[in-house]
Amino acid sequence: MKNFEQQWSIDIPLDGLQVLRREHPEDTIIQIGDVRIGGECEPIVIAGPCSVENEEQILTIAQTVKQHGAKMLRGGAFKPRTNPHSFQGLGEEGLKLLQIAREETGLPIVTEVMDPRDIELVARYADVLQIGSRNMQNFPLLKTVGGIQKPVLLKRGMAATLEEFLLSAEYILSEGNPNVILCERGIRSFSDFSRNTLDLNIVPAIKHLSHLPIIVDPSHGTGLRELVNPMSLAALAAGADGLIIEVHSHPDESITDAFQTIGFEQFSQLMQTINHFIEWQKLHASTTTVY
Amino acid sequence: MKNFEQQWSIDIPLDGLQVLRREHPEDTIIQIGDVRIGGECEPIVIAGPCSVENEEQILTIAQTVKQHGAKMLRGGAFKPRTNPHSFQGLGEEGLKLLQIAREETGLPIVTEVMDPRDIELVARYADVLQIGSRNMQNFPLLKTVGGIQKPVLLKRGMAATLEEFLLSAEYILSEGNPNVILCERGIRSFSDFSRNTLDLNIVPAIKHLSHLPIIVDPSHGTGLRELVNPMSLAALAAGADGLIIEVHSHPDESITDAFQTIGFEQFSQLMQTINHFIEWQKLHASTTTVY
Amino acid sequence: MKNFEQQWSIDIPLDGLQVLRREHPEDTIIQIGDVRIGGECEPIVIAGPCSVENEEQILTIAQTVKQHGAKMLRGGAFKPRTNPHSFQGLGEEGLKLLQIAREETGLPIVTEVMDPRDIELVARYADVLQIGSRNMQNFPLLKTVGGIQKPVLLKRGMAATLEEFLLSAEYILSEGNPNVILCERGIRSFSDFSRNTLDLNIVPAIKHLSHLPIIVDPSHGTGLRELVNPMSLAALAAGADGLIIEVHSHPDESITDAFQTIGFEQFSQLMQTINHFIEWQKLHASTTTVY
Amino acid sequence: MKNFEQQWSIDIPLDGLQVLRREHPEDTIIQIGDVRIGGECEPIVIAGPCSVENEEQILTIAQTVKQHGAKMLRGGAFKPRTNPHSFQGLGEEGLKLLQIAREETGLPIVTEVMDPRDIELVARYADVLQIGSRNMQNFPLLKTVGGIQKPVLLKRGMAATLEEFLLSAEYILSEGNPNVILCERGIRSFSDFSRNTLDLNIVPAIKHLSHLPIIVDPSHGTGLRELVNPMSLAALAAGADGLIIEVHSHPDESITDAFQTIGFEQFSQLMQTINHFIEWQKLHASTTTVY
Repeated sequence: MKNFEQQWSIDIPLDGLQVLRREHPEDTIIQIGDVRIGGECEPIVIAGPCSVENEEQILTIAQTVKQHGAKMLRGGAFKPRTNPHSFQGLGEEGLKLLQIAREETGLPIVTEVMDPRDIELVARYADVLQIGSRNMQNFPLLKTVGGIQKPVLLKRGMAATLEEFLLSAEYILSEGNPNVILCERGIRSFSDFSRNTLDLNIVPAIKHLSHLPIIVDPSHGTGLRELVNPMSLAALAAGADGLIIEVHSHPDESITDAFQTIGFEQFSQLMQTINHFIEWQKLHASTTTVY
Repeated sequence: MKNFEQQWSIDIPLDGLQVLRREHPEDTIIQIGDVRIGGECEPIVIAGPCSVENEEQILTIAQTVKQHGAKMLRGGAFKPRTNPHSFQGLGEEGLKLLQIAREETGLPIVTEVMDPRDIELVARYADVLQIGSRNMQNFPLLKTVGGIQKPVLLKRGMAATLEEFLLSAEYILSEGNPNVILCERGIRSFSDFSRNTLDLNIVPAIKHLSHLPIIVDPSHGTGLRELVNPMSLAALAAGADGLIIEVHSHPDESITDAFQTIGFEQFSQLMQTINHFIEWQKLHASTTTVY
Repeated sequence: MKNFEQQWSIDIPLDGLQVLRREHPEDTIIQIGDVRIGGECEPIVIAGPCSVENEEQILTIAQTVKQHGAKMLRGGAFKPRTNPHSFQGLGEEGLKLLQIAREETGLPIVTEVMDPRDIELVARYADVLQIGSRNMQNFPLLKTVGGIQKPVLLKRGMAATLEEFLLSAEYILSEGNPNVILCERGIRSFSDFSRNTLDLNIVPAIKHLSHLPIIVDPSHGTGLRELVNPMSLAALAAGADGLIIEVHSHPDESITDAFQTIGFEQFSQLMQTINHFIEWQKLHASTTTVY
Repeated sequence: MKNFEQQWSIDIPLDGLQVLRREHPEDTIIQIGDVRIGGECEPIVIAGPCSVENEEQILTIAQTVKQHGAKMLRGGAFKPRTNPHSFQGLGEEGLKLLQIAREETGLPIVTEVMDPRDIELVARYADVLQIGSRNMQNFPLLKTVGGIQKPVLLKRGMAATLEEFLLSAEYILSEGNPNVILCERGIRSFSDFSRNTLDLNIVPAIKHLSHLPIIVDPSHGTGLRELVNPMSLAALAAGADGLIIEVHSHPDESITDAFQTIGFEQFSQLMQTINHFIEWQKLHASTTTVY
């Protein structure tokens, strides 16, 4: 393991960063209700639509993904959209619909916050605050979520190096909130057949360097529903602590991200495979461990 | 599956390319001695040193990787080196040592050819001709290997799109040689913690679009031996037909690529995991199929 | 000009975007005190330190860059730092020092704002609000600066496409603030000899598609002071409406970005060349115009 | 200048490389007939079609570009095409047409060679042998052109670092051929509005580190004819020793690369601007020099 740390230590000073395993050797395990993420815990699946659209939509999806084994519900109420004239999400109305879905299913809620002025509002409804890729280096936002104890799902920026990713997590940790889940969701490269290039190399690299859990988003990481199932399995094989997947009752009619959203039948197949794989992994985990 | 093909057909005309599944629906299976690659065949492992160094080195490695279940031996005799003053490989002497290793172990040989003028020579010794990343668009070389029937291992260029990769294979096919094995080995991106960014998204994309087998090189694809085992498993989970891995008796003393070369103990662990995984995959393959 | 617009219109709908020249054919000219940027106006130079450090530092630099012909003063009070443990800027104290420098020199002030909650504060001191690369898609911040009339310097994100860059400007315009100056500052690529890859192609492309002024930051765009002078001239030759350059009295002692900061002597040489070039450009502008 | 060399020396050992200025402080000047490239020589323009199509085409273009001040004629006879089913160039027939054009105009000929087996043939007709981007690390080809004294135009690979670029030139120099002209032609990045991202940063970096001349290809470097003129001027402003530009009598009917090829009227305007600029540069060269 020497080479790796030596090489890496050229780039950032390793001393004193709370995010590093050398400062904090035991795995951090994040507890959200009954759900536990990280360390030796079983990988979990977070599923749901890209955007919350209406009550029926979110309830149907929540019930279905729960039935197939998802442990948390994702859904965007505040949507970061490239074009200001695109649908921007339902806002607080969307948060209320997520709350209803939680009451009906018991699934904890993951939803994005983009504005430090909205954190109190979003934290009232959400169980996990998502910081999106475009905000990975929005330092005031990182500091604000660092000031509360609510778990944070921090997505890697589209052009963020491993160092920058860990140092953004360090912003949250150093404000006093240790509950950070990292998320690889694909990077920008020249390669244009997939929406993003899913960089699974970072999964074992993060497990080696940091004690924080890391999950993978194969929906944004590929942008193509045909690739979601195999890349979900690949992410778990690389050592991910979980997956976050876009699922919709009528994927082609999703208001946002239709191309990468999978339907219930595909999700059902995926969950069967994942559940079998996790069983297999329990038997063979020792030989795949990297750190 | 419609979205994916529709999106892709913007970029290249789909009609008439031999490399595409739509022209040739059945999987191509490449036969090398007793070894079969592609389609429903069990994934195989190709292992060996980056460079052939001497007889004892290549024999020890060949015997050990065979014992752990590798099906072919890799080893460079003609080495493409960035710096002209670096070790350039043993040349024909290296090919002869590979031949001895094949006689001793029965493992077929994979070795690189860089110069169309060397193809006859290299083909005399090799069972599979490797075209390296730097030569993926060396069209005279592609045409020359297309003119013989020897199987070709075609590595993706460091900045090659999926289209360019398939069209380079088309060069070989259209000259009359159908025996092409594709190989993802990592692309150049901004991300600098790993030597290359292993783009596993391309594995299911290729399986969907083409009938050719695709294998993965986790050694070049990561550049870090700590990442080789988890990324090998991830590659198989993504649907790869095989792996090509750099292994050395004394990895730190490898003349070339020491950082990414694994030792015998790590290789032994990896092969155990892979063998278990392949058993598991046989039971669950139907749910992971993408095409 | 057909090809270019046709190609581009594949990616974003061209109708109705205020940022586009087809909606607003005349060049937008931004007025800041006596300074005018855009259209046929003479290119201007914004210069100053990366960070405001103390009164003597900022005053000395302001007076010197003014004397050599700079038209505005740059200087960071709120600094976006990758590492939370790095110097974060002097905050409001830094803004006050910038105000003193403006009073002494008459140079308008450009300084970064990162937090929508700070906009009122920063706008009290600044003449131009800078939105940094890391915040190019911080949509709440864009909306907030769109709600006031203060000119905005919008830096391109490290992985932002041309479309995304223009659509981020559209966020500001569509909130009612037409005073947006775009800034190319280098993108993330595999190329590692320079800190960023300065993408000057975007300068004539933006001039063709949009009526907004675009300036270039050769300091961040290269990361190496040896490259600042030639790339400044190249930026003007490509059609840039101005430059923003990091200058320090003791560049090697800059608290931040020392490698890319130039000293007074180099700045003096640069300004001489620029002034000669602008004279030349006035005589030959017609043949270089692209739109 | 210390920072830059220190930083760079981390990556490659500086000692003993013939390509470096520290080994060979005086600029290399390449003489091709009456044309001189490099050092203090006036920048030159190489112009012509992407592909040689027929005698009338190449003669018309050769005469016209000469009349506007081009110093050499470019034109492809052996074309590296992504798709094997695309037009592959006229081969030797194309070389003969180039020879006729040279006899008619006196312009030296630059044409690509892709196969080491063709070098003798191509060298019989060409004055400068072009090694294309896809072959920048085709080491047998580099060694072969290193074995003759014919000048070589070495294009940067699409994903080549500065180090790799210089080390490929070193292959040629170390075989005994000192006549290497480097050429920046754009790199692969995520940015998709232009065909490639023209990396002009490399021009002053190369001038600083190496004694070899470097020219720029704004046609491939942008892929859009609307950007060719401003980026040509930007390249000269950055310090380039010349330009290589695709020009055609009927650019929209070019068999290859139509989008980026300019017509005679645009070329005429460009040459006027360039000639004025070169006059200006002579007066102000001292202040733009970086090395």
